[in-house]
Formats: sequence, C-alpha cells, structure tokens
Amino acid sequence: MTIIGLTLLELPIFAQKIFMSLLTVGSVAFDAIETPFGKTDKIVGGAGTYISLASSFFMQEQSIISVVGSDFPKETIQEMNSRGINTEGLQIKEGEKTFFWSGKYHNDMNSRDTLATELNVLEHFDPIVPDSYQASDYLMLGNLSPSVQSSVINRMHSRPKLIAMDTMNFWMDIALEDLKKTIKMVDILIVNDEEARQLTGEYALVTAAKAILDMGPKYIIIKKGEHGALLFSKDQIFFAPALPLAEVFDPTGAGDTFAGGFMGYLASTEDTSFENMKRAVIYGSAMASFCVEKFGTDRLLEIAQSDIDKRVKVFNDLSSFELKG
Amino acid sequence: MTIIGLTLLELPIFAQKIFMSLLTVGSVAFDAIETPFGKTDKIVGGAGTYISLASSFFMQEQSIISVVGSDFPKETIQEMNSRGINTEGLQIKEGEKTFFWSGKYHNDMNSRDTLATELNVLEHFDPIVPDSYQASDYLMLGNLSPSVQSSVINRMHSRPKLIAMDTMNFWMDIALEDLKKTIKMVDILIVNDEEARQLTGEYALVTAAKAILDMGPKYIIIKKGEHGALLFSKDQIFFAPALPLAEVFDPTGAGDTFAGGFMGYLASTEDTSFENMKRAVIYGSAMASFCVEKFGTDRLLEIAQSDIDKRVKVFNDLSSFELKG
Repeated sequence: MTIIGLTLLELPIFAQKIFMSLLTVGSVAFDAIETPFGKTDKIVGGAGTYISLASSFFMQEQSIISVVGSDFPKETIQEMNSRGINTEGLQIKEGEKTFFWSGKYHNDMNSRDTLATELNVLEHFDPIVPDSYQASDYLMLGNLSPSVQSSVINRMHSRPKLIAMDTMNFWMDIALEDLKKTIKMVDILIVNDEEARQLTGEYALVTAAKAILDMGPKYIIIKKGEHGALLFSKDQIFFAPALPLAEVFDPTGAGDTFAGGFMGYLASTEDTSFENMKRAVIYGSAMASFCVEKFGTDRLLEIAQSDIDKRVKVFNDLSSFELKG
Repeated sequence: MTIIGLTLLELPIFAQKIFMSLLTVGSVAFDAIETPFGKTDKIVGGAGTYISLASSFFMQEQSIISVVGSDFPKETIQEMNSRGINTEGLQIKEGEKTFFWSGKYHNDMNSRDTLATELNVLEHFDPIVPDSYQASDYLMLGNLSPSVQSSVINRMHSRPKLIAMDTMNFWMDIALEDLKKTIKMVDILIVNDEEARQLTGEYALVTAAKAILDMGPKYIIIKKGEHGALLFSKDQIFFAPALPLAEVFDPTGAGDTFAGGFMGYLASTEDTSFENMKRAVIYGSAMASFCVEKFGTDRLLEIAQSDIDKRVKVFNDLSSFELKG
C-alpha cells in the first residue's frame, strides 16, 4: 500500500482520487467500558474512530466528519492523521465536552447495560462537509441520528458512488420515519440481527432482509456476532463465518470496525460486484475479530497488514470446502 | 447409486461391504407435533427413522437396530426396506406399544415444550446386534441412554472404523458418568450448542469443543440451528453455513437428519479425512434443510437425489468466496 519515493502531489490524478475516496461520518468519543475481564477509565472510542481506523489499513488517505470537545486528546487526532485520516471535517468545539458513553457487559458478552450517555457536543452536531471531501466516492454513515446522516448525503454536490449506513434500535424507537427516509437514500444498510427484526417486524432474517431491500437499499448486511454475518442482494445471499473465539475481551466497536474493514476494502478495490462484496464482508469480519481482542481501539492500533492477511486466510480455511465431481 | 443389470450377489465382495457398512441405532417412534403452522396426529418419527432415511440417499444398503411395538405400521418398515434399510435388528414387541413423544414448538421455533413422553418398548430396550450387522464399518448411535449406546459398541465383534454419537441434555442430567464413559468410546460427538455448553460448563463453543475433544472423541460437531454448524478436530475448525430459511415448518428430526446425511455421506465415500468430513457436514446440513420444510419425515420421503445435489450447490454458493492474489 505504500508508494515509495512519491509524494501525493506527484501521483497521477486518478490515483489521488482513489486515495481520497472514502468519507466516514460517525462519532469520535470517550467510552468507559466494563467487561468480565476488567474495566477502563475514559478511553477513546466512537463509531467514526473505529470505522476510520479499520479502513485506514486499506487506504492511503480518507476523511472523517465528526465533532469533539476541547477535552479530546490532540494525540489521537495526530494518530489518525498519521494513518492517512483527513480530519478537516472533525469539528473541535472549544470549551465543550466530547460525547461520552459508559457501559457494562454481562457475562455472556451478548448484552450490555448502558451506565451513562452524555451527548455533549453531539447534541447539536451539524455535520459540515468540507469542499475537499466533495469528491468522495464512498460514504460510510456510522450510527448517528438519521437526520444527521441524511443531511450529509444532501450536502454532497454529487451523490457518492456507494453509500452505506449503520443504525441502531434507538432510532427505530424515536425517529422511525426519519430513519426510513434515510435508509431509502443509501445503497447498503448494515445492522445486527435484532435491529433487522425490530426494523421490519419479521423474525426470519431472510424475510427481514427482503423487507429492508424493499425499503430502498440494494444490499443489506445482517451481523450476527459470533454466528457470522449475512449479505443479501435481491437475488443473492452470502453467509460469512465468524471466527470461533475462546474469549471476547471487549466487544465495543466490533460492529463499527466491521463496517470500516468492509468499506475500506470496497473503496480500495473500486469494485462493487457481489463477489467483491463477499470478500469485503470477510475483511470486515477479520478486522472485527481483532477489535474484540483488547479494550477499545488498542488491538487495532497495534496490528500490521501482515496480521490482517493471516487472519483473512484463517477465515478462508474456516469456511472453505470443495464439492466432488 | 443404482447398479444397472447387477444383483447384489453378482457384485464383488468389496462392493457389498461398502453397501452394508452403516449401522444406525436409534428410536423408531410415534410423534405428535404442534407448530405455529399446524399440528399432526401420531406420525412416524424417532431418531433412528430420520437417520436411516437421510443416509439411505447415500447408500444402497444399511442396517438399523431399534425396537417398536406391534402398533407400529408394517408399511413404514416396508418403506424402510425398499430404501435399502435392513430391519433385521428392529425388534417388534408383540402386544406392546411404540415409544411416543408429543411436543409443541414456540413461535420462534427455537424452543419447544414436551407435552408427553411414553417410553413404552424403549423402557427395557436391549439392543441386539444381529450377526449380519457385525461387519458394519460405520456406526451411528442416535440419541438413547448412554448405556444402550455403549452396549451396542461392546456387542460388536470388532470395533467399527468410525463411531459417531448423538446425545441430549437429559442424559447429562441423569446419567453423566455413563455418558462420559460412552463419549470416550466414540470418534465423533454430535451435539447442539446448548448441549456442548452443559456437558462442559464452558460458554465459548471453541473452549467447549476443546474440552469435549479431551474427553476422547477425535471430532466434535456442534450444531447451531439457523446459525450453521461447527466441526472441530484437535487442530482444525470448519464453520458450515445454514440455509437462511424464510420458514421452518417443523424442526422435529432436523438434528437426526443432519447426522444421517453426515454419516451416510462419510460411509458412502469411505473417506474420513477432515476435508471429506467438511463435505459430509454440508451434506448433513442440506438433508436437515429439507427435513424442516414439512411435518415429520414427509419431505425426506418425497425428495430425489437431484434435489439433494441442487441443495448442496446452494450451500456452496452461499458460503464460497475467493480471496484475491
């Protein structure tokens, strides 16, 4: 991925465009997490953080739209920049506080209690799209209010080639109509099984997926945690395995990391065929499998490209079989 | 599978042996089932029935050990015989009644209430192994008391090449020590996720699988219903998808049908490599996916070999992806 001896300015325009093509919108935040394995003080989290860190392994440059308070560490922003994440669209609100979430996972790691949610700067977040972001071909809308998500789409001068969005049951409870309008605008909806069921009222995931495709998106990804993920188009289904793990240390950010790996891979390959989306789901799953190995973003910050290559090979070995004859 | 113009007697001894090589031990019973889609009167069921019907698609001949009362329909036994299932070891107890189970599935189809269990002939079942069964190379022990399962192994003059067993939480509750002794005698344990957890006290399936491998078996299959199945050896894991179904009409017998397809495929290919076991898991999953489409054995009795081939192809399309480079 590194281009030795060339600065960006020396690259042909086409190559620059590829590097700049993923735009992520999502929270950059503080989390305090408690799992059966331990607990953290305030650490850096947020959907936007996980998405862009995960996708940074696939792209030289990308950009993020978000908002933090003046309490947010400059070092983290520098770390993002050093990984090719353009933070021109990351608003820093002087004298205000960064979004904070605190939660405690139950023993089975499949459910958690929210201990605190302090919206802070996120309460009146107005996502401004810098001019330098306008050429983005791929747009990943992390979990935020559907009106913030749709306003970013509306503020793009031309529609990105591919728009994916995440959401959660909270928005289904309090802003269902807005949510449905936003879903109609995107190409890919990424949700978990319970969210797919709540959104559609359908229990069987294949029926829920069909109902979501009828709402507008061309693709729907249903994440099932330890049971893998399903990718649906109108006439195709892909069942991606999850890595059977002995231990999930901290599930926080796994879904966002999946989305970042998925969109990063898609944007870097510039190929939105179903075959390539299948690969992107595997890369997303591989990235998520790292994320849960340590608290917060710790594991994402220490892995190298070679770790990802190895992990993806494990996913391949895990689910490949060959029919005879 | 049909050998045109040859009777069994004209075949070389080796080929005859292949045909005779799977022995199934399991209940042949009556079930009364209620699902959200309807209910049945007493219909034919039982682990042994599902296992041998499913494996009959892979083998010209096989055999079964079980017991029924004189109330059991002769037509069903004839149907089994017509599918190459040798019923010499199916004891018919004059004047006694066949095992009967009745259950009602909840709306999500993942849980059920047992409405009635009448052991009848199964209460004092002594599994006699006919001489003609002694050459069986593959032995499938359907869910029965572990002492009945182990007595069949002990009554074989020479140990079959491969022994697989199913069991359930009931035996973990009332006969754990017996169960562990029997598990130690087999090559493959086939259980569902909850059973694997109860048997080992481990929540993570990869840890539970390791604990079960430490008990003796060389392989463990953990069925996860709509989430697929995992096959573990000491150093390999395979994650098999499940077919995403819009509707599960009746889950009764799906696990036994999986086991029948799995063992039928293994026995018919005479190949116990991990690669071939992966294929066998896919064939088992395909057979199970038919089973749930109608009440009881109805769907298994109407499908043809071509349906199985098509379904296995669907499983392949569902989970196959190709990494680049």
